[in-house]
Amino acid sequence: MTTRFFGARVQRVEDGALVTGAGRFTDDIKLKETLSAAFVRSPFAHARIVSIDASAAKEMPGVHLVLTAADLPAAWRDKRLPLDVPAPAIRHPLTQFPLAADEVCFCGEAVAVVVADNRALAEDAAEQVMVEYDPLPAVVDCRTALAPDGPLAQTSVADNLAAKWVNEYGDIERAFAGAAHVIAEDYFQHRGTGCPLEPRAVLAQYDRAGDSLTVWSATQAPHGIKRAIVDMFDIADTQVRVIAPDVGGGFGPKLLTYPEEIVIPHCARLIGRPVKWIEDRREHMMSTAQERDQLWSVRMALDADGRILGLRGTLLHDTGAFLPWGIIMPYISATTFPGPYVVPAYRLDTSVVFTNKISTSPMRGAGRPQAVFAVERLLDRAAQVLGLDRAEIRRRNLIPAEAMPYKVGLIYRDGQPLTYDSGDYPQCQQMALDTADWAGFEARRAKARAEGRHLGIGLANYVEGTGLGPFEGATARLLPSGRILLRTGAASQGQGHRTVLAQIAADAFGVAVDEVDVEVGDTASVSVGVGAFASRLMVNAGSAVDTSSQTLALKLRQIAAAVLDAELDDIELSGGVARVMGTQGGQISFREIAKMSSGRPGFSLPRGIEPGLEATSFFAPPQAAYSNGSHVAEVEVDPETGLVKVTRYVVAHDCGRVINPLLVDGQIQGGVAHGIGNAIMERMRYDEAGNPQTTSLADYLLPDAGNVPNVEIVHMESPSPLNPLGVKGAGEGGTIPAAAAIASAIEDALSPFGVKILDAPMLPETIAMLVKNAQAQKDAR
Amino acid sequence: MTTRFFGARVQRVEDGALVTGAGRFTDDIKLKETLSAAFVRSPFAHARIVSIDASAAKEMPGVHLVLTAADLPAAWRDKRLPLDVPAPAIRHPLTQFPLAADEVCFCGEAVAVVVADNRALAEDAAEQVMVEYDPLPAVVDCRTALAPDGPLAQTSVADNLAAKWVNEYGDIERAFAGAAHVIAEDYFQHRGTGCPLEPRAVLAQYDRAGDSLTVWSATQAPHGIKRAIVDMFDIADTQVRVIAPDVGGGFGPKLLTYPEEIVIPHCARLIGRPVKWIEDRREHMMSTAQERDQLWSVRMALDADGRILGLRGTLLHDTGAFLPWGIIMPYISATTFPGPYVVPAYRLDTSVVFTNKISTSPMRGAGRPQAVFAVERLLDRAAQVLGLDRAEIRRRNLIPAEAMPYKVGLIYRDGQPLTYDSGDYPQCQQMALDTADWAGFEARRAKARAEGRHLGIGLANYVEGTGLGPFEGATARLLPSGRILLRTGAASQGQGHRTVLAQIAADAFGVAVDEVDVEVGDTASVSVGVGAFASRLMVNAGSAVDTSSQTLALKLRQIAAAVLDAELDDIELSGGVARVMGTQGGQISFREIAKMSSGRPGFSLPRGIEPGLEATSFFAPPQAAYSNGSHVAEVEVDPETGLVKVTRYVVAHDCGRVINPLLVDGQIQGGVAHGIGNAIMERMRYDEAGNPQTTSLADYLLPDAGNVPNVEIVHMESPSPLNPLGVKGAGEGGTIPAAAAIASAIEDALSPFGVKILDAPMLPETIAMLVKNAQAQKDAR
Repeated sequence: MTTRFFGARVQRVEDGALVTGAGRFTDDIKLKETLSAAFVRSPFAHARIVSIDASAAKEMPGVHLVLTAADLPAAWRDKRLPLDVPAPAIRHPLTQFPLAADEVCFCGEAVAVVVADNRALAEDAAEQVMVEYDPLPAVVDCRTALAPDGPLAQTSVADNLAAKWVNEYGDIERAFAGAAHVIAEDYFQHRGTGCPLEPRAVLAQYDRAGDSLTVWSATQAPHGIKRAIVDMFDIADTQVRVIAPDVGGGFGPKLLTYPEEIVIPHCARLIGRPVKWIEDRREHMMSTAQERDQLWSVRMALDADGRILGLRGTLLHDTGAFLPWGIIMPYISATTFPGPYVVPAYRLDTSVVFTNKISTSPMRGAGRPQAVFAVERLLDRAAQVLGLDRAEIRRRNLIPAEAMPYKVGLIYRDGQPLTYDSGDYPQCQQMALDTADWAGFEARRAKARAEGRHLGIGLANYVEGTGLGPFEGATARLLPSGRILLRTGAASQGQGHRTVLAQIAADAFGVAVDEVDVEVGDTASVSVGVGAFASRLMVNAGSAVDTSSQTLALKLRQIAAAVLDAELDDIELSGGVARVMGTQGGQISFREIAKMSSGRPGFSLPRGIEPGLEATSFFAPPQAAYSNGSHVAEVEVDPETGLVKVTRYVVAHDCGRVINPLLVDGQIQGGVAHGIGNAIMERMRYDEAGNPQTTSLADYLLPDAGNVPNVEIVHMESPSPLNPLGVKGAGEGGTIPAAAAIASAIEDALSPFGVKILDAPMLPETIAMLVKNAQAQKDAR
Repeated sequence: MTTRFFGARVQRVEDGALVTGAGRFTDDIKLKETLSAAFVRSPFAHARIVSIDASAAKEMPGVHLVLTAADLPAAWRDKRLPLDVPAPAIRHPLTQFPLAADEVCFCGEAVAVVVADNRALAEDAAEQVMVEYDPLPAVVDCRTALAPDGPLAQTSVADNLAAKWVNEYGDIERAFAGAAHVIAEDYFQHRGTGCPLEPRAVLAQYDRAGDSLTVWSATQAPHGIKRAIVDMFDIADTQVRVIAPDVGGGFGPKLLTYPEEIVIPHCARLIGRPVKWIEDRREHMMSTAQERDQLWSVRMALDADGRILGLRGTLLHDTGAFLPWGIIMPYISATTFPGPYVVPAYRLDTSVVFTNKISTSPMRGAGRPQAVFAVERLLDRAAQVLGLDRAEIRRRNLIPAEAMPYKVGLIYRDGQPLTYDSGDYPQCQQMALDTADWAGFEARRAKARAEGRHLGIGLANYVEGTGLGPFEGATARLLPSGRILLRTGAASQGQGHRTVLAQIAADAFGVAVDEVDVEVGDTASVSVGVGAFASRLMVNAGSAVDTSSQTLALKLRQIAAAVLDAELDDIELSGGVARVMGTQGGQISFREIAKMSSGRPGFSLPRGIEPGLEATSFFAPPQAAYSNGSHVAEVEVDPETGLVKVTRYVVAHDCGRVINPLLVDGQIQGGVAHGIGNAIMERMRYDEAGNPQTTSLADYLLPDAGNVPNVEIVHMESPSPLNPLGVKGAGEGGTIPAAAAIASAIEDALSPFGVKILDAPMLPETIAMLVKNAQAQKDAR
C-alpha cells in the first residue's frame, strides 16, 4: 500500500460548501408543505401536572395539531425512551418520557407539542396551552441529594441514588497506612452546556404509501435514533431511515436520543405532512443534556520522594433528572482518575444521584476532564507540600515507556482490563516542557512581576481511552463512473471525517482524494452503526474503510490481471486505472471494470470472479486504544478583577499514527478552546428552586478568538497495535487536561496570595473573591 | 441444510395483498401534488417532422409543461437511449430518441409530452400540440425490406439491414448431398403484443435539496432504467433510485428502458413536482415493444430411417424501427433451432431488418417459440413423408440421456459453447405421451369423427437456455426484531419470487417462510442488478440468496457457539433460536443475537466475530442451465368456421430441482395460456401504410378461461450441476412449444382436408380459408 495521502495535510473536502453557505443542515432541508413544531415546556424544576387544557390552542388558525401525553399512543403509556447502555450498578433505569404525563422533573421538560403552519404560530399557540402545575420540592444540589429527609427528584423512586459502585485494586489501606504524605482535597466541577453552533433540529417525513418514516436530525448517532424509533413505534427496521445531514457541532449531548426525535416523527405520521422542529438557544440551554456537576473528595498517599502509593476517595456524580446514557460518563471518570501515573493501590466509591435539572451526558472528554482535574490538582498540592517542581513530581510518577502495554488494574467501560496499549508518557511531557520553555518561565515571571503583572504556568497530563467499539462498518464501492463511493455508519458534526476516510481509500485505490465520495450519517448506507463520540471514528470507521477498500482494491487488481493476462503481483492501481507495471504492460480503467460488472447483459467479469464491485467490512476493536498528552498553559491573572488571560498554550500529543495533521491540529485547537471555556468561563447556574439562570449567550459566556491563544502543538506518534491503521482518537485530547493545566497556572500566578483552586470553572468573580478572602485571612492572622 | 420448504407447495406470500386489492402498483403510489403526463404520438408510420407548434397547448389552463425534442437538454441532441447489449453483428445500433426530433419511424412514436393537473387535461392539451408531418414511404413487411429500390425505414441509414450473421457447424453441404429426404418449407410468425394486465407506468419524483431522482416504474429491470437515467442525465449513480413496486405482468417488453422512463423524470426535475404517466391500452399496443415477425426458409436433411443429417436455411427477423435489445432475440432463435435433437450439421443465415413498426423485444420464450415451431413443423412434415408416427421420428432424433452434458456445436448468447447441462429428453417425451394417452388417441378421434367432430393431436419438444447471467446479488440480514430480511437485485412481475426466495432462506435459517421479508425491485437494495427475464431469477437470485443465507446462518451458529460455550457442529437454528442440540443445551434467540450486534454501546458480539449480521453474495452462472419439456395438445377444429378449441393439454417438464411445485405449475399453466394465444388468437395487424389495425382488446383477442384447458403437468427433475440449488428456469417453458404442438394438432385434425399449417398464429378465418382453398384445389383436380 502506498501512503500518498495517509499522513498528509490534505485540505478538508467539506469546507468548500461550508464556508460558502452551501452546507445542508437540517433546517436547510425544505420539503413541500412542511409544518413547524414548538414545545410547551415545564417552567418548574419539579411539579405534578394537575391538568392540561389545549382547547384554545387547538382552535387557533394555522394550528394543525396539539398533543399532550394523553394524546399519545396507548402503548406509550409508561413507556420511556430506550436506555441503550444498561449496567448492573444502575438502581433506577429512568429515562425521559416522550411527553411528561403526570410529573415534570426539570425546568424545560416537554409536556405538549404544537404543530402549526410556521414556528411563530406554533409558539403563540404553545403559550395558549394551559397547564396547571402543583409544584413539588426540587433537588438542586447533588451534595444534598442523599440527605435522609430531603425531597425526592422523582416521585417514582424511594431515594435519589441512581447508581452506586466501587472501582478498586491493590491494598489501599496499607498504601495509606505507610504513606509519608497524604494529600486530601475536595474538588467540584460545575455544570456547563454543549453549545454547538447548530442547536438540535428534527425534520420528519412520513410516506403513507410505504408506511415509512424518514427523519433528519442534527444528531451524532443516527443509528441510535433509528433503534429508538423502531422500539417506540414497534415497526420494522426497514420502515425507518434516519439521516444526519451536515451537523453544526455535537460535542456529546447530540449522541442521545431525545423526546423530540420521537414526538416529531409521530406528528408527521399523524398529519401526513413533514414536520420540523429547530431548537432555539434558550431551549438548548434548558432541554439539551449538559455536563460536569461532580464532587470529588479524594486523597493521595505518597512516599517521602513524592511517589504515589495510593489514590482513594468518593465521587458524587449529578446525573440530573434522568440517566439517558446510563452511567457511562461517571464510570469513565472513575477509571480515568489514575491517569498516566503508576498508582499501586486504588479505591474510588462512586455515587450517581438524581436532581431536578436536565440530564447530563458525555461531553468532549466525557468525564475525563473532571478526573484529570482531580489527580493533577492532587499532584500540584503534593509538589507544594514536598517542595518539588510540578514537572518533577510528575516525572517521578509517569508510567515509563518500557512498561507498555501497561495494565492499570481496573476494568474499563468496554468491559476489558484497562490496558494502555502504547506510548511514552515521560517523553511526551518533556516535549511539552521543552516547547513551552518551562525552565525559562521564572525569568518571564520575574520580568512581568516587575511590570506589575501576575503570570503563572501550569502543567497537566492525561491518558484517554479512545476508539471504543463496539464497532463501525464501511462499504467501498466502485461506481459506474469509475469513482469510489464509501458508505459508513459514521456520522460527522464538522470533524472532517469525509476528508480523512477519503484519504484512507484514496491510498488503497491509488486515486486522488476528490475521486472518493463519502456518505456518512445515513442509516440507509449501512445496516448497523454506532455513531460519532468518544474519539472513536478513526479507529472504527477508519479501520473498516481501510479493510473494505483494500478488499475491493485487491478485487480490481484480480480482474485486471485476468483481463490483461498478467500476474496479480504485477498489477498496480494508479490514477483510476489498473495497469501492468513495467513498460510493456496494458491497462484497464476503473470505468471499464465497472462496465464489466454493470449487469448489462452484454458484459461480464472474467470467469471465477464474483460479480459486484463492492466490499463491506466491520471493525470491532479488541479494546480501547489509549491516546495521551501533556498540556502547558501560561496565564496572566488580574488579582483584582479575577480576569484570566491564557497567554500561551502548548500541547504535546500522541494519538498514534496521524492520518491528517491539519485536522488533528484543528481538533486540538478547538479542544483547547473548549477547555478554556470549561476552565474559566462556562458555568450553567440554577437558583435554589432549580430554575436555570443562564439561558442565553449573554449570561453564559463562550470563549471567542480573543480568549483563545494560538495553540503550539507537537505530535508524537506511538502507533496503536490494536488496529490496522495504528491510529488512536484525537477529538477530545485538546479539552481533557485544559482545565487542570489552567487551574495549575492560575494558582501559580496567584501564589503570592496563597489561593487554592479547587473548582472549575473559575470565573473572574470567583477568582477575585478567592484573592480577597485569602488576603482577608492573611490580614486576620 | 434441512429442506423443510424447498420443494414444498408453499402458498404465495404475495397473494394476500393482490387478491384483496391491496397491491401497490405504480398508479397506487399517491404522492402529493402529482401531475399527469400525456404524450403526443406520431399518427404516421414514417414521416419527417416539419414543425411543431405547442403554443396553444401551453396556454391551456392546468397545463404545466409542454416539451418537444427542441426543448430537451442540448446534450440530448442526437443522443439515443443506451443500447445495453451491443454485438459486432449489428450494423446500425439505432435506439429510440427520448422524443423524436426530425423524423418519426413508427406510428405511436412520442414527439412531445404534456404535463398537466390531471390526465384528462393533459390529453386535451396533447391534442392541441400542432405537428406538421411530411409523410415518407413506410417499410411494413420485412419480406420486402431488403428490396433494392424499396423505401428506407430510417433516413439515417443506407439500407434496412440492421444486422446479419451466420450460425453454423459440421459439414452442411455433405449432409444435404447425402440425404435420403430433404424437407423444405417457409414459416412465418406474425406479430403479437405482450398485453400484461398492467400496462407500462412511470412516476418520477425529484428531490431538489438532494438533487436526486426517485423513479417508480412498472418494469422488469429497475437497474437497467437506473443505468439509462445515469447515462442520459450524466449524474452520479447515487443520485438515482429506481423502484419497481408491484408490477402486473411483464413477459419481456418491460425489460427495455423506454423514452417515457427518461422523459417523465426529466419533467419531474424541471417542474419540481412528481409526474406520473400511466400507459393506456391503446398506447400499449402502439408504443410498447412487440414480438414475432420472423420468416424461416428452412430445410431439413434426413436419412432413410428419419434421422436428421442437417438443418439449414435463412431467418429473416423484423426488429421494427429500432434495436432496443440488440440482436439478442433473433440470436436466441438461431441457436434454439437445433432443439433437443441430434443435428450433425447446421447452418442458419440470419438477417435482421428495420421496418416502420414499433420495435420487437424478447417476449416469453424470447425467439424460442419461433425456432421450435420451425424445427417441429419440419419434423412433422418429415414424419408425413416417411410415414412415421410423429412421436417415433422424434424418438429417433432426441439426444439420449447418456450423451449429457451435450455440446451442440454453437456458441450461445452467453458467449459460452451451447452445452445442454443435464436432462433425459426421450424419457420426458415418453412421460408426456403416456400422460396424454397418445397411443389411445386414434380411438378418441374415430369416436369423435363418428359424431362429426374433427379431433387432432400434436406433439412438440423444446430445450431452453435459462438462468442466464451475468449475475444477480442478494443480501441476507438479521433484523433487530429477529426476522430475516432478503434484499436482491431481482424484480418481480407477479411470478412469486418473494415466496420462493423466502423458502430458500427459511430453510437456511430454520424459520417459517413468513418470518422472512423479501425486498425486490429496488435499486437501493443492492448495488448492481440485472432483472427478471429469460427465466433467470431462480438460478441467479435464488443461488445468491442461498449462499448469502447460508453464510449468515453459519455466522449465527458461530455466535451461538461462542455465547453458549458449545461446539459449532452442535448448534442448530430452528424456530428463531440457535440452540445446542441434545437435552442439556442452552439456546439464544435471533432477537438476542441481533441485540448483541445492534451497536448499542453496552452490547457486543463475542470476540473474534466481525460485527454486522448480514451477508451479501452474488451468483454468476458459468453458462446457461437448459430446461426442457414435451407438450401434447389435443384440439377440436370446426373446418367451416376455422374455430379451434384446445380440448386437452399435457406438459412434461424438466426445470431441474423444483423449489415450489405450486408456482412452477402456475408458470406452466399461464405459459400455456400465453402459448394458446400465440398459436390461435393473438395477431397484431398493420395496414399497408404501417398503421396498426389492432389497438384494442376488441380487435386483438386474448385467451381467457374459456379458451384454456386445465393443463396436466408432470415434472421430471434433472438437477443442474451449474448452481448450488440444482435449479433451472421455469417461466417460459409453458409458452415455447405451445404454438408448435397446437399447429401439429390442427394439421392433424384437418388431415382429411390436406391442410398445411405454416404460419402462426392461426386465426379462425385463416384456418377456414385454408380448408376452403384445400377443398377448392381438391375439387379442381
